[in-house]
Amino acid sequence: MSEPLRLGIAGLGTVGAAVIRLLTAQARDLAARTGRDIVVTGVSARDSGRERGVDLSGVKWFDDPVELARWDNIDLFVELIGGAEGAARKSVEAALGAGNSVVTANKALLAKHGLELARLAETHKVALAFEASVAGGIPIVKTLREGLAGNSVARVYGILNGTCNYILSRMELEGLTFAECLGDAQRLGYAEADPSFDIGGFDTAHKLAILASLAFGVKLDAGAISIEGIEQITLADLQAAAELGYRVKLLGVAQRTPHGVEQRVHPTMVPLSSSIAQVMGVTNAVTVDADAVNELTLVGPGAGGMATASAVVADIADIARGIRSAPFGLPVADLAPAEKSPLQRHEGGYYIRLAARNRIGALAAIASRMAESGISLESIVQRRQAGEPDADVVPVVLMTYATTEATVREALDAIVADGHIAEKPQVIRIERE
Amino acid sequence: MSEPLRLGIAGLGTVGAAVIRLLTAQARDLAARTGRDIVVTGVSARDSGRERGVDLSGVKWFDDPVELARWDNIDLFVELIGGAEGAARKSVEAALGAGNSVVTANKALLAKHGLELARLAETHKVALAFEASVAGGIPIVKTLREGLAGNSVARVYGILNGTCNYILSRMELEGLTFAECLGDAQRLGYAEADPSFDIGGFDTAHKLAILASLAFGVKLDAGAISIEGIEQITLADLQAAAELGYRVKLLGVAQRTPHGVEQRVHPTMVPLSSSIAQVMGVTNAVTVDADAVNELTLVGPGAGGMATASAVVADIADIARGIRSAPFGLPVADLAPAEKSPLQRHEGGYYIRLAARNRIGALAAIASRMAESGISLESIVQRRQAGEPDADVVPVVLMTYATTEATVREALDAIVADGHIAEKPQVIRIERE
Repeated sequence: MSEPLRLGIAGLGTVGAAVIRLLTAQARDLAARTGRDIVVTGVSARDSGRERGVDLSGVKWFDDPVELARWDNIDLFVELIGGAEGAARKSVEAALGAGNSVVTANKALLAKHGLELARLAETHKVALAFEASVAGGIPIVKTLREGLAGNSVARVYGILNGTCNYILSRMELEGLTFAECLGDAQRLGYAEADPSFDIGGFDTAHKLAILASLAFGVKLDAGAISIEGIEQITLADLQAAAELGYRVKLLGVAQRTPHGVEQRVHPTMVPLSSSIAQVMGVTNAVTVDADAVNELTLVGPGAGGMATASAVVADIADIARGIRSAPFGLPVADLAPAEKSPLQRHEGGYYIRLAARNRIGALAAIASRMAESGISLESIVQRRQAGEPDADVVPVVLMTYATTEATVREALDAIVADGHIAEKPQVIRIERE
Repeated sequence: MSEPLRLGIAGLGTVGAAVIRLLTAQARDLAARTGRDIVVTGVSARDSGRERGVDLSGVKWFDDPVELARWDNIDLFVELIGGAEGAARKSVEAALGAGNSVVTANKALLAKHGLELARLAETHKVALAFEASVAGGIPIVKTLREGLAGNSVARVYGILNGTCNYILSRMELEGLTFAECLGDAQRLGYAEADPSFDIGGFDTAHKLAILASLAFGVKLDAGAISIEGIEQITLADLQAAAELGYRVKLLGVAQRTPHGVEQRVHPTMVPLSSSIAQVMGVTNAVTVDADAVNELTLVGPGAGGMATASAVVADIADIARGIRSAPFGLPVADLAPAEKSPLQRHEGGYYIRLAARNRIGALAAIASRMAESGISLESIVQRRQAGEPDADVVPVVLMTYATTEATVREALDAIVADGHIAEKPQVIRIERE
């Protein structure tokens, strides 16, 4: 058996404690699988007095994670502090600089500084692994980097934020409003007190930047992503979607287009029959479309201490076995720049919900404007609300065949200018399998 | 860059040709990802004259695959011949014995001789990789061996045979009989002229033996698997399942029980809301229940030249990168014997369809026998066929709460002995998420 692999773990919250518990419970099996013992030699956290339900006897305590990261009594630094800057960034840089490998679950750090960190790992010939940073316990990083190594990826998309999926699922299944579901998510601990990072799509964007780099061999660039959140999604949209055979999900999508790799986060209509439509609640899912494998979908827990720890321990085991891949699949020098493919060029079907004024000719005028822009309609439904035959405003739902974002926006500008519309149009992109 | 990795490929059918095409198309990317060129130096197949649409100029031809396997101008032997014995077995043994690593898609060979081959690979310190042997393009071998390394697995189950899933899907969706769907599957090339290997559950069993070994660290033992095929499944079962909120799938299931690892292949009722129930047609899916990750499901193509080649090339890339894991996760000496947990001890819910004679008291007698055996019924439905009010026989469908196989069989024996039943009872096990 080889020398033990010595770990320093910084951050002993839910995930950190779960990692230590798994390493203890699976110690014998991990040693047999990797050919060496895995030993925690040092830890660092904010409060050394807190009871965490894990045995830290014989483990050296560091008040400063940077000091732990550089300690010559570790081979691998596990960063579970969180945040794109501060202690997380400093300690990861220190570890790599000192020739220690790093495992991190920190998507914000990677989305912002992943490229320089990968370069640092290359320079010092150490590993930088981050399976837990995207979709929790789902091994999507390993799948893209190793499992699909023979494929050219056309598109990768997924439900990457459990909070948003929980809210959309409950709205649809129980007929609740966005605000009601958000409140419940906060009470259950699925959403932060300030939920804007989740529901605004920014958390999904961080994860998408990582997936896009792995799938397409491009440099991480969270700034290249178009982002819309789920704040504007209403029950009326979810009900219209269901009637049309669709479901609304917040997706992160990265796809190869003639204009470069398009990266976008937005509420999306997916066919009810698709694998991804079945994914409800806090569960995550990622689908990869690639030339050889065609379509592969992974479904599993996107968050939670144990699920995240599962991914962290898998990275630790790989490093113990001596597996060394370039962090983003290709050496940094071989990663292409991420061209920003503007959303205006996006091609696809669209769901459009309009609040049309109840006037003779309004529907005809709307249909004419769509036709003038060359948009083919798959369906157009105007439905008076039951019990409101004389309402001032009636909902009109349009589903288009494939067109471009620019064309849709141009047609809607014309429709709004005609004065037939009482509210801002609701637009949701359709993503087909 | 390191020395090139030299491949010998034996078997140039659909998969072999697809492997060569992928290696050519992805050559630059694979070299960047693995740090070395991957070069085919030798091939072997039955007919050297056949046109395969791939460029074999400069590649040495071997009539005898065993000679290629031993050739000192290869580092890695790719076995795509097929079959548990003969040329496939001899050439894989020869390659490992000569110190060449092996990649194979051959589930029959592994199910029968996997343990000795793993031992041979260990002795000669070479790799034996077989991602393509289970569930085609789905990276389930890598996921169990590496991605879930920190988990203790409780159960692994899946749809592992596309032919059976195609037949069951079409029967349900189009109301066709088993025989009609089997005929179509044969015409479309999804089923062999002799389909018994697929529809009898034996193909699923081979794959399950491999999954069980990886998931539970037990020695491969296809003989430890209880096997039932789908030949007896009728439209009446599929319709009753749908009414009750279930769908019938041929599953391979391996699970930890107090009596050892239970391994079984049989038609199974799965809840319509489960991920696995959504998997239709020739698609495969595998779900892993484990302590840390909870539930993880992978869905993708189970067969086809390109999807299988995707898995073969991923194995080749891992070996090029120098990844060496024990073939079944643990060293052979650490694998536990696979105890055969007899199906009589299986615990779970049951669907039972009886053809009851249309007599007063028959239903009461059936219910009494179930009660006498201590079986709790979730539902019991007796329904006269429309238009046949005076039929001699009426179908009775029972759904039980969790009980044991032995108890169910005992109750059914008593019911049959009572003489109320006109046909052999149909029994389908229920698998819950």
